[in-house]
Amino acid sequence: MAEQTVMEKIVSLCKRRGFVFQSSEIYGGIGGFWDYGPLGVELKRNIKEAWWREMVTGHNETVAPVGAPSTYEMVGLDTTLITHPQVWKASGHFDLFYDLMVDCKTCKARFRADHVESLRCPRKPSLAPGEHGECDLTEPREFNLMFKTYIGALLDPTAEAYLRPETAQGMFVNFKNVLSTSRVKLPFGIAQVGRSFRNEITPRNFIFRSREFEQMEMEFFCTPESSATWYEYWRDRRVAWYESLGLDSDRLRLREHGPDERAHYSCGTADIEYAYPFLEEGEFGELEGVSHRGDFDLRSHIEGKLIREGDELVVECNEDGTPRHPGSGKDLSYFDDATGEKIIPHVIEPAGGADRTALAFLCEAYAEDAIPDENDVPQERVVLRLHPQLAPVKVAVFPLTKKDGMPERARELYGDLKAVCNAAYDEKGSIGRRYRRQDESGTPFCVTVDGQTGEDGTVTVRDRDSTKQQRVPGDELVAILRERLHLP
Amino acid sequence: MAEQTVMEKIVSLCKRRGFVFQSSEIYGGIGGFWDYGPLGVELKRNIKEAWWREMVTGHNETVAPVGAPSTYEMVGLDTTLITHPQVWKASGHFDLFYDLMVDCKTCKARFRADHVESLRCPRKPSLAPGEHGECDLTEPREFNLMFKTYIGALLDPTAEAYLRPETAQGMFVNFKNVLSTSRVKLPFGIAQVGRSFRNEITPRNFIFRSREFEQMEMEFFCTPESSATWYEYWRDRRVAWYESLGLDSDRLRLREHGPDERAHYSCGTADIEYAYPFLEEGEFGELEGVSHRGDFDLRSHIEGKLIREGDELVVECNEDGTPRHPGSGKDLSYFDDATGEKIIPHVIEPAGGADRTALAFLCEAYAEDAIPDENDVPQERVVLRLHPQLAPVKVAVFPLTKKDGMPERARELYGDLKAVCNAAYDEKGSIGRRYRRQDESGTPFCVTVDGQTGEDGTVTVRDRDSTKQQRVPGDELVAILRERLHLP
Repeated sequence: MAEQTVMEKIVSLCKRRGFVFQSSEIYGGIGGFWDYGPLGVELKRNIKEAWWREMVTGHNETVAPVGAPSTYEMVGLDTTLITHPQVWKASGHFDLFYDLMVDCKTCKARFRADHVESLRCPRKPSLAPGEHGECDLTEPREFNLMFKTYIGALLDPTAEAYLRPETAQGMFVNFKNVLSTSRVKLPFGIAQVGRSFRNEITPRNFIFRSREFEQMEMEFFCTPESSATWYEYWRDRRVAWYESLGLDSDRLRLREHGPDERAHYSCGTADIEYAYPFLEEGEFGELEGVSHRGDFDLRSHIEGKLIREGDELVVECNEDGTPRHPGSGKDLSYFDDATGEKIIPHVIEPAGGADRTALAFLCEAYAEDAIPDENDVPQERVVLRLHPQLAPVKVAVFPLTKKDGMPERARELYGDLKAVCNAAYDEKGSIGRRYRRQDESGTPFCVTVDGQTGEDGTVTVRDRDSTKQQRVPGDELVAILRERLHLP
Repeated sequence: MAEQTVMEKIVSLCKRRGFVFQSSEIYGGIGGFWDYGPLGVELKRNIKEAWWREMVTGHNETVAPVGAPSTYEMVGLDTTLITHPQVWKASGHFDLFYDLMVDCKTCKARFRADHVESLRCPRKPSLAPGEHGECDLTEPREFNLMFKTYIGALLDPTAEAYLRPETAQGMFVNFKNVLSTSRVKLPFGIAQVGRSFRNEITPRNFIFRSREFEQMEMEFFCTPESSATWYEYWRDRRVAWYESLGLDSDRLRLREHGPDERAHYSCGTADIEYAYPFLEEGEFGELEGVSHRGDFDLRSHIEGKLIREGDELVVECNEDGTPRHPGSGKDLSYFDDATGEKIIPHVIEPAGGADRTALAFLCEAYAEDAIPDENDVPQERVVLRLHPQLAPVKVAVFPLTKKDGMPERARELYGDLKAVCNAAYDEKGSIGRRYRRQDESGTPFCVTVDGQTGEDGTVTVRDRDSTKQQRVPGDELVAILRERLHLP
């Protein structure tokens, strides 16, 4: 058997430990859909919670963060996955959100046009990537990436609706609602976490490119004059967030787009990228995009679908002069008390993916090393060096003896820990096996309750990364771990 | 203008304060879809977090809870909204998950057959409910409630898929994955929180019956012998959960279904119901269903779609004897170490809705009372008496003076509070207006920083419900509120 690649090992660990399963696996699976298992759901919850705290609930609007040009306010939102279809027509997604695809008339396979060069022929996988044997490829055709559905009982065009391909539009169409109910003033941000859907032609690379995924997006509204400064602030702050949670190697990078690479409405875009192990050496994949979107989105939802004419954004019109896709006609401007003027705010959007983030953290955390066993013989192990804030389980308690009331003491300590963080209790198997299980799960600390606990009340705390053990008084365990785990 | 009903007042408050907005409102809205605003998203997050902690992360599997027949284990899961279509064929949803609808040939309106008697004629709303003037109603027809979509580029039957109408099936199809990766033993539960979709013919009553909603479901797997006892345990425990978070009036009730009212596979079902204010006096609406599902679901996913024949559940077959909708054929049994036998576990399912729960908590919390102003003249107010654990904002800080460094002190205290809970800072408007704003938002405590703070360091803490104020030392504020809010 050929040796597994790092990516194969990570996928295998994710399955084995209950991080990620193929969706509908018992029915043969379904391409581009992944379920999160018992550990995966906690990892993803921790990532989303860390993001929400960073962006919304933990933000102090009375103090300008380091590097920020001023104070600002921040609110959250949770909008529906299915919206009025006009949202996607005005936004441009209905016309422009597509991939070019080619079909093979011989083997009936369907490819993204820009992937053909790197994919193997499904009929003759022995050929080199990009070589397609007798394949007879069609000319590229446009394929809209939005999943279509129908609201109500009629399966006709009047009932058509789409699953959102991004959470962002839900925030733009609620701009006025947020303004009028939250009394926020510029600059302010609206944040949202939620599912989005893209009907990818060729989903691949595990949870990196799937058809159903979770986004963490924020729309930051500011004056046009301050927008370039805010763009730089958010770009740098988002990089710092990934670093603060452990993505601090040279596998993370920030890449500014050139003018030709940006969307037509953007006057500044950067990708935060990660060198995922499924990529070739030196290649990076997108983790989060930070873009300066100008007034494109709010204007679209006021006036209708915009297109670029020279340096100007103008409403695309039918031959009779009516908008091709009308906007809402509502007043989505902002009245500036200070200047007495109405403006359409500019927008900075840091748009991250919770699944890609989870994958990057898993890849960065994955390590193989050797640790000495009780006879000082090195034993190979797999360990996930996840940041404690992200680790699904923070601490595992192992009773090593059933004598002298020790399992009861272990349970008691476990109960105390469970009150402050997610903890595990494991009494099965050898101590070595128990450690290995928790190492593979990314659990930062393991606590053993043993014979000596009965004598002097102490327990051992073992550190996942150094594997060093330390005896501490059982009564101080919760306080000690609370500090080491940086619990609030 | 006619006086508003209580329900109208609650809907109006939800809009005014930023709890709930109509989805795509600027485009005229979209029936049956609702967005959660800045306060609503926090309320819903708190509800889901309280549920998750109760069910998953806060559960101690080494101790049998009061009333439970034994200890048990509990894990979480997060599965996709789009699954393999066979999931819904084997489960029965493809054939059986429908409402009967009738169309009016005159006015083209569409009704749920069981709603016709209570709805007003859209063409002549002046008629009494159930009277439909010249309406010419069709015979009832079946209308499947699952939203249909297509995966991949072909809009043909081979590409058809459905948005899940419940989260439950994602847990059944992952039963074996959970068993093999989490090493759980019977009895154990799998919990999930997530969106579901039902293409309701007539969505109504605000967020009570919408087309997109969020469920909090748990599937509890146990031996057939213990299942009746576990059914009673979960039924009662779920009621206690609602009560513990403030739903403790006689507007909450538990109702056991009669044998004729249960689903065909169920041997015990109870509804936890709430007297929502949109209902007639004495009527109740469903909040959560707790059902004993036997081995119906796991058997369906092994063998195929089941139907009842007499007292037996059998696989429905085509004329040639093949299953109408085959299951996976996979072994979803449980091997009992103790007895050495393979069994198909029985299932108890408490299935709640996060939106209905939010609505019930909002309705229960809504109150109008009169409180004395500084001159002892009663002033009417609207207040949301939300449980502190559910309140979107836990405490608001009001600086009352800008003299003597007091706004700085207020900001400092606000920063300290923000580190432990979601807090607000409000320096705008009269103190009375600021209190009213927080009362309507359900904020349990307001803290004022005033002239006396500069003299002796004390601040006032005002209780939302009693409106009593108490001076406390500013340095002890965080500790005092931490205790009153029961923060961990």
